[in-house]
Parts: sequence; C-alpha cells; structure tokens
Amino acid sequence: MIDGAMLIGSDERQATARFSAIDPASGETLTPDFSSADAGAVADACALADAAFPVYSATTPEDRAAFLEGIADQIVAIGDDLIVRAMSESGLPRARLEGERGRTVGQLKLFAQVVRQGDWLDATIDPALPDRAPLPRPDLRRVNLAIGPVAVFGASNFPLAFSVAGGDTASALAAGCPVVVKGHPAHPGTGELVARAIAKAVANAGLPAGTFSYLPGETNDLGGALVADPRIQAVGFTGSRGGGLALVRIAAEREQPIPVYAEMSSINPVILFPAALEARGEAMATAFVQSLTMGAGQFCTNPGLVLAIDGPALDAFIAAATTAMTGSQPAVMLSPGIHASFEQGVDALAAHQSVKTVARGCVGDGVNQAVGALFQTDATSFLADRALGHEVFGSSSIVVRCADMAEIASVIASLEGQLTATLQMDAADEADAAHLVPVIARRVGRILANGWPTGVEVSHAMVHGGPFPATSDGRTTSVGTLAIYRFLRPVCFQNLAPSLLPAALGDGNPWGVARRMDGTREVSPR
Amino acid sequence: MIDGAMLIGSDERQATARFSAIDPASGETLTPDFSSADAGAVADACALADAAFPVYSATTPEDRAAFLEGIADQIVAIGDDLIVRAMSESGLPRARLEGERGRTVGQLKLFAQVVRQGDWLDATIDPALPDRAPLPRPDLRRVNLAIGPVAVFGASNFPLAFSVAGGDTASALAAGCPVVVKGHPAHPGTGELVARAIAKAVANAGLPAGTFSYLPGETNDLGGALVADPRIQAVGFTGSRGGGLALVRIAAEREQPIPVYAEMSSINPVILFPAALEARGEAMATAFVQSLTMGAGQFCTNPGLVLAIDGPALDAFIAAATTAMTGSQPAVMLSPGIHASFEQGVDALAAHQSVKTVARGCVGDGVNQAVGALFQTDATSFLADRALGHEVFGSSSIVVRCADMAEIASVIASLEGQLTATLQMDAADEADAAHLVPVIARRVGRILANGWPTGVEVSHAMVHGGPFPATSDGRTTSVGTLAIYRFLRPVCFQNLAPSLLPAALGDGNPWGVARRMDGTREVSPR
Repeated sequence: MIDGAMLIGSDERQATARFSAIDPASGETLTPDFSSADAGAVADACALADAAFPVYSATTPEDRAAFLEGIADQIVAIGDDLIVRAMSESGLPRARLEGERGRTVGQLKLFAQVVRQGDWLDATIDPALPDRAPLPRPDLRRVNLAIGPVAVFGASNFPLAFSVAGGDTASALAAGCPVVVKGHPAHPGTGELVARAIAKAVANAGLPAGTFSYLPGETNDLGGALVADPRIQAVGFTGSRGGGLALVRIAAEREQPIPVYAEMSSINPVILFPAALEARGEAMATAFVQSLTMGAGQFCTNPGLVLAIDGPALDAFIAAATTAMTGSQPAVMLSPGIHASFEQGVDALAAHQSVKTVARGCVGDGVNQAVGALFQTDATSFLADRALGHEVFGSSSIVVRCADMAEIASVIASLEGQLTATLQMDAADEADAAHLVPVIARRVGRILANGWPTGVEVSHAMVHGGPFPATSDGRTTSVGTLAIYRFLRPVCFQNLAPSLLPAALGDGNPWGVARRMDGTREVSPR
Repeated sequence: MIDGAMLIGSDERQATARFSAIDPASGETLTPDFSSADAGAVADACALADAAFPVYSATTPEDRAAFLEGIADQIVAIGDDLIVRAMSESGLPRARLEGERGRTVGQLKLFAQVVRQGDWLDATIDPALPDRAPLPRPDLRRVNLAIGPVAVFGASNFPLAFSVAGGDTASALAAGCPVVVKGHPAHPGTGELVARAIAKAVANAGLPAGTFSYLPGETNDLGGALVADPRIQAVGFTGSRGGGLALVRIAAEREQPIPVYAEMSSINPVILFPAALEARGEAMATAFVQSLTMGAGQFCTNPGLVLAIDGPALDAFIAAATTAMTGSQPAVMLSPGIHASFEQGVDALAAHQSVKTVARGCVGDGVNQAVGALFQTDATSFLADRALGHEVFGSSSIVVRCADMAEIASVIASLEGQLTATLQMDAADEADAAHLVPVIARRVGRILANGWPTGVEVSHAMVHGGPFPATSDGRTTSVGTLAIYRFLRPVCFQNLAPSLLPAALGDGNPWGVARRMDGTREVSPR
C-alpha cells in the first residue's frame, strides 16, 4: 500500500503539505501525492528514536540479527509491486532493480551475520593486576556501544540499495542505532513500500516503535531540521557535494557537533598504462564506454577521468571510444533535476576553451535522457583549471593527454579525494604502476586493476569511501561490513561489578564473541 | 642542550621572534629564550613531513617499532636534565615528573608492541570467486594505511606524557604518520630536550629527516597555520575548549577538511550511591579531596562534580570533605595564565547566587598557587544554569544535592559529554546503578566504580575520550593503544598484481599479521 503517509514509529500520519513523484521516462506526475514532513514530524520521530535507543541498543546479537533478517524478508514479501513502482519513479530498468533488490536484501543478511559474529564489539579486557608496582592496575574492559539515533538520507541513484533500507540504514541498525530516514523525493512510493516493510519487521520483532521512522519530503528544511535535532547522533548521506556539505555545516554548528558520513563526489580516474594501451587499447575503449554509459552513468564510481600518455596508442583508444560512444544509446536519467544538471555540466565542458568534444552518444526522442559525452584535453590545461576535475553526474568523461608517467603522477597528485582509481595495466607496466600506487593510495578508497570502477562488492574488504570530497570522512566506508563502525563508539568500564557490565564484557563471555585479553585475541568459542 | 632552536627535520634554525618560559613557582623568567616559529617554518616543516610520508609510512612493523623504542631510549638518555628542566617550567614535583617520564617511555614501547603485532592493519581479504553467479567476485584486499602528516599540539599539564613525545605523537608515529609538533609555550625547554631526542632517533634509524619536526612558539597564528597547511592530514590536541574549537574550525574551513582529535573539557561526575554514602561517606570524602587536589587538580579527569541524594549521610560527607579541604595544601599551578583562569572560575562560582562555598584549602605565600575550592548547590539550581557544568581547570568541585535517584539521572542526562563518570557504590546500590549505567554510558568514555577518575592506565581497554565537548570526536581515545586508529584510513585493493600489494595483504602473509579471510579471522602465525 502506498498512501503518502509519514511513518513516525508505529504512527501513520498525513501531512497537509504534499508533493508528487514524476516518472522521468514520461515526465508525468505519478499518484498518489505524498506528505511533505515538517519540523513537528521530525521532532516526534527523533523523540521516539531517542526513547527507543536504550531498548534497541541493548538487544542481543541474535535478536538484532533476526530483526535485520526480518526486514529482508518483508522487503522480499512486497513482491513485484516494489520493482514496478521503482521502475516508474527512477526510469531504471527491471533487471537492474531486481538486482538491486537482491543486493539490498543480501546486505541486510550480511549485517545480520556480522552482528552475530561480534567482532564489531571489539570487546577488550585488560585484567586487574592488583600486585603491580608502583601502582596496581584496575580491571579495564572496553566495548563498542551504539552512538545513538541516526539520520539517514536516501540516495536517488540506488532507490533500494542506498535508500530507505540501504547500506546506511542496515549498518546503523546493525550497530544498535534507531534510524530516522529522510526519504528521497524522487522515489517516495518506493520509499514508502520499503519503510512499511521495516515498520512491519519492527512490530514483528516486538521492538520499540521508534526504532524506525520514515519522513518523506522534498524541502531542504526537512533535512536541516533532522540533522539539527539534538537527539540525532550521526548522519548517513549519499548525494551531491552541495547537499552533503550543507548537512556537514549544520552538524558542525550544533551545540553538540556530530559526525556526518556524506558520500558526495568522485570522478574516479582511470590510468591507461603504456603496455596495456598498446596491447589492447581498442578493447579497453569499448569496455570503458560501456562502464561510462551503463545506467546513464549514474554511479558514484563512474569513470569520469582517463589519464594516458599521448601518442598513437592513445589516438587509437580515442578512436575506438569515439565509435563506441557514437553508437551508445540514450538512457532516461533518474529525475528531471539530475538530467538538467548533467546537461549543464556537459555544456560547460563542451564550451571550455581547453576542452575538445570527442564524441556524443545517440540522441533519443524521449524526455530526461542522458546523451553520453566524451571530451579530451591535455594535462597542462587540466592542471590549470580545477573545474575540469569536478564531477559531472552521468555519462560524461574526459581524457587527459599526458606527456609521460611523471605528468600522470602530477595530475593524480592534483586531484581531490576519490572513491576509486583504476589501473589498466599489463605485466610490463608493473614498474610504472609501482611508482604510482602509493601516490594514488593517498587519494582514494579503492584501487582496482583491469576492471572498471562501477560495480561495488558488498563484502568485508570493500571500501566505498575516500578522502574529501569523495566523502566527508575518509576513515570510513558506506558499503561493506566495515560500515558498521561509523555508528559505534568505545566505552571503557573500570572495576565495575559483574552485574553492571555489558554482556559482551562479562566473565564467562556470555555472548560468545571474540575478545582481546591483555592484548591477545582469544579464540572465539563460536 | 637547550638553545631555543626550531627543529625542522634535521635543520636547527633560530627565529628572530623570541619568547621565554616562566618558572611558575617563582614567577621568574627562565633562560634561554626560544624561537617563536612563524608561517615560513610551518611551511618548511610540513613540506618535509609530506616528503617523508611515502618512505616513513612504508616502513616495516619491525623497523617502525624499533624506531619508537629508539625514541624511548633517547628520552631516557637525556637523564636528570629533563626532570630538572620540567620541574622548573611546570612547577610539578620530581616524583610526578619521574613517573610521567616512565609513562611516556612505556607508552612508546607499548605502541612498538602494537605495531609489531599488526592488528592495527585490520588486514582483510575476500578472495576472488570467479565462478559466482550472476557475477564473479573480484579479489578484494583491505588494509589500514597512514592518513598523512599529523600536527600535534602539546598539552601544558603533562609536559612529557601528553606533549612532544606523548600519546598523540607516539600513536601517530606508530600509524606511520610523520609528525609536526607545535610545542607548548609553558615548557619550551622540556619540549626542546624531548624534540632533540626524537630527532636523534630519526637520524639513528636512517629515516627521512621530515619524519619529525618541532616548532616552539606562543602565538595562535602558529597553531592556525599548522592546522591550515594543506599537507597536514590530522590534528591531535589536548587543551582548553576554546583552543580546541578554534582548531576544529580552522580544520573544517580548509579546502580539504581534516579530522581534529581535540581532548578539551570534562567535569567528570562522581555519583555517591546511598548505601555507599551511608557506609563509608567519611573515607570517601577524604579520598575525594585527595583526588581533587592532587597535582593542583590539573587533570582532564579531575572530579569536578559530585552528585548525591540530600540527607544526613551527604551532610556527613560534606563535613568530612570540608575538614579535608580546609587542611589541603596549596600547590603551584602550571602557569600564571592557568592560575588566573582557575581563580576566575572559582570566583565566579563563589559569587553565584545559587552556589554556596563549602570550603577552601590553605592559602600559601607563593605565587601562582591553587587554593582548593569545594562548592555546593541543589539539582534545581544546577539544571537551571548550564554554566555550573563548565570545567574549572584546577582543584575546584561542586556537590549537587539531589532529591532522589531520578533527579540524579536528570542531572546526568543534562550534562555535556564527559571523559569519565565515577560510581561510589556498594552491593546494595547495584539496582540503582543498573538503571543509571546506560544513561551514563551515553555521555562518557569511561565509567569506573569505587576509585577516582584521576590516573589513566595506558592499555588496550582504556578509553580517554568521550562525546563532545570531552573531545571533538567521541569515536576515539587519546590514551591507550586504540589511539593509533585515529591516524589510519582503510584502502581496498581489487585484483592488484601481487607485486603491487602492500606487504600486509600479500600472499603468504609476509608480515605474519593476523588477517581476516572471507570474514573469518586467521590464526596469526606469530
């Protein structure tokens, strides 16, 4: 059921102010209309989240894991209505959304495993040394505790995997934090369906209603009020640099500043090393354009910058890329606003005096369609104008002709923080790559070889993060199991009576988690 | 040797601008005078640190650990000159400074152990699954890398353990980050002796000179320029709330914002539970005043707030505390400035219309001496004026008379973030404590029972941190081995050739560190 309600804990409430979603493929307004949540709704949701915190954060790993699995089950139980609604609100094709649903459900189940396994608690015990001289050591026990209620901002480009029940929500709930979601206004129906699934899972698990609330809306004031609410203790966000920085600013100006995990902006440089470029430039070009134009290029990890040494091999790469791009089909973008921004970014590059348009994709006859764009420039021009290194969200990329590997290194060293960097390289390129990898590693969250940056695995070793402005906190990731640590903080218990210790720290290890004893890791009883 | 130089890598340089240290016990100016580092010195030190980064951050655990031990040895080798100079610059007694030297050296050696052991790398491998459907999984390997050059601001109250070679420097160097120290102007001679010891260890280890630089100075501009330098990637600071927040602001306004770990302000509530208060109120009062007045109360964890239920048992506690306080000896404070702030804070409390002065310590005839101060008020008054909850750095504390446990809980819930909270409790208090502990845990970094918060163990389970404003980043600690994580960030390597992988992630585990393989921890070969 979709009726435009706000879900404030177990309370379904309709706001007077309304907004509607648009089908980007047709430009038509979709029904029903939706509540545009106001400051009162924010305050109510945050009060409920705060009240839920002591109970929800104290759930056992088993109960919390079962709850996460319950959410996954409820999302699956929505059935095809979810896919159909998401298609109409996002313009994304069925196969992509079915895959994304699988990823969303898989992500919740992976966090359930993580919660059960217990490494996230980082339970650490330094036993008392009563006879130590000159001073005895007290009994010291440390564990990670949930940080408090978390505000999550859904992203437009993954209406399932990065939205209402996406990675931020899954990792915050896994950490023991109640979540208040500000739904993305481009897919409010999809958002509501998923929010209702989570609310059902909350009720089924017998958890406090405030464990989860959902606030649809389209005003900046809504997001601002949510981040400013004193009960919110951390923020997860995926979206534009402007949007993310606005939230960072609000969070920093609170009486009590809080962490904001904003994943914002990246152009994901691809380096074509000489031997690889020589050996397989054409195949690379085709695969590159495919990665660039897939899903209208609406990925945080879209390859928006290509670096290579100037010469005939690069000419051949560009020629092949031109062919591939010229034949690429237009694709509906997520929203009229995103499409307009894309056009603006592409127009600015096309008009730039140091930039040459290499190729454009096919023009279609529908609305809100991205027409792929490939540009080129030289390293001197690129280094002279930082604007050339700004993200154009969508299928736009720029090839930078460099004089030699040293100039490639200079360009990389000039870049802002990135989510990824890609090495297209063969064995003969290893010596060059060995020089470049440390330079790259300072600026990115993930370095990959001989693949394309789009496609982010949800696993233990994944880092979907990176130095500013890829994210607002380069010590973290928003994809993969490491994401849970964003919503935890360590607390030490000194000489506390056994009855007052958190279970993870208790004598006899009642939760059976892996612990560190006097600096040495115990083998887990599990 | 102390000659007032700046140590910019291996380059000893004298600045034209000079400042001097003052012996707080006599008020006299000490010789020699010292360089007041300017923006040019900052830029040079940061450029050297940046140049040193690729080499220093790539050192093996064994080499880095040996370097940390080398620093410890060089500090010990300074001999008694270090203690004598620190006594004259800080007014702290010999025994305290000898203990602090032991702690400083022990801290460096503990981080050497941590570096060798390798858990800090969090090496995590998700092996490729080439046959997985619908998509194969690439080979994914994650490791923690050093964040970049770190700026460290020495604290006045621990001229050794929280200063030039203190916890921030030790943990940043352990993480693989070059360090630029801004020395505290209250103890520049002590700072220079230690800085020269580190520089010697750098040279002995054959490390790049920029691994460590030392900038003495007394201007706010110096600190501001250091935090603003684009090569600095994180900041460690211990000091006042005003100072810390100024650095946080500068760091946030950089083109690339960076994390600031500022440990700032805490009043460390002590809760006297009914049964314990009844049974041993007098002994508690004596121990409390001892903890409060020790070292002139110049500890971040000084017990500045006491909460208890009003009644005869509390009256008896206050009477005994009055006796102890009245007999307490005055003690020289660290600097004339700190002494003036203390007097100002105490005068404001004494003049507050809702606050009653319970007792003052003995007045001495020396300069810059703290005279202990004990105040009382009631919970309603305390809740009505947030200023009563602000830190007065030094031996000043306020007892808040509460109506019942619920009112104690209200006072705790009203507090800003704290480094510690202390429970004075007996077995009969456990039920009351069980209700309060979760409320307390949301607001502090460490909860301790039946001790006093002063005295912070350097170990694995320690948390010397807490929610704002105890620190600017409540997810961290500045004491204990967990502190190393402040200066690390995760990077993922996908399908990289073996020759390009960091050693910690290499096949065959060349560094022999504990790793997580497909989500399961390997038993370390060590």
